[in-house]
Amino acid sequence: MRVLGIDPGTIRLGYGIIVGEEQMCMTCCGVLNFSSKKPIETRLYSLYNELSQIIAEHQPDEVAIEEPFVGRNTRSALAIGRAQAVAMLAATNQGLPVYRYSPTEIKQQTTNYGASDKRQVQEMIRLQLGLPQPPQPSDAADALATAICHLQQRRLEFNISSKLRA
Amino acid sequence: MRVLGIDPGTIRLGYGIIVGEEQMCMTCCGVLNFSSKKPIETRLYSLYNELSQIIAEHQPDEVAIEEPFVGRNTRSALAIGRAQAVAMLAATNQGLPVYRYSPTEIKQQTTNYGASDKRQVQEMIRLQLGLPQPPQPSDAADALATAICHLQQRRLEFNISSKLRA
Repeated sequence: MRVLGIDPGTIRLGYGIIVGEEQMCMTCCGVLNFSSKKPIETRLYSLYNELSQIIAEHQPDEVAIEEPFVGRNTRSALAIGRAQAVAMLAATNQGLPVYRYSPTEIKQQTTNYGASDKRQVQEMIRLQLGLPQPPQPSDAADALATAICHLQQRRLEFNISSKLRA
Repeated sequence: MRVLGIDPGTIRLGYGIIVGEEQMCMTCCGVLNFSSKKPIETRLYSLYNELSQIIAEHQPDEVAIEEPFVGRNTRSALAIGRAQAVAMLAATNQGLPVYRYSPTEIKQQTTNYGASDKRQVQEMIRLQLGLPQPPQPSDAADALATAICHLQQRRLEFNISSKLRA
């Protein structure tokens, strides 16, 4: 299964594709940049078109996307929510199922600890994907963590249904 | 000039079209409903497609959309932000310029008072558009108020530039 992970944002959007069969393997990762000097509607338009192109090129089976954290910084949650909405639309428009994960779920699934820090998450991504260095930049690493979270969740579901059948 | 006003939401989205030359005249208004039982990505997909169809049918020149109010209810601001993002994309994808107005700006432009209540705004819409009753439902009325706000803003800009030229 080929999973596209997305760390949404209206200035920087991280993405990463992981193929997960027995082992997980990274296909690509990167960051889309949108100038904060441009109006929000122009940035969302670029986001939609560039992400649609990545989906068309890499043909993922499923999309995993990080949920905004609704904490004290509401302006940041709003920006992430806008980017997430347009990213979900790009995926749904190409017929792909979308799965959403909270930052805590992503940390829990990648490091087995919901309150782990950025460095710990990046080190676990490096180990899981067999990379010589943690992936850079950090938005791309966060996107890969979201994809790993989804693949772990899928494995868990598969193991539970196998045990129920046994 | 034909303006499409939008009151964004992920469960109910109000829209209204006003033609504003010397007098303002309502072309149509209504509400798009999205079942809250469906996942957010499905609702946003329907929102995008239904709104794109309205734009293609009515061919507005410009789009005016209400900004989310980032106050205490952050979940509500997030939902409005998501709907707003997808609505802006539908407009931008058809080459239309998008203008955003805060709830206070809309009240100020329609009633001359930024803290007016819903009833006062609706009564002013009724008077401005020469309607026998305030438009219903309230989401459609809010969308019309956003379109009126934009047309008032345009008139103000026109008057200022005329005076500067004189």
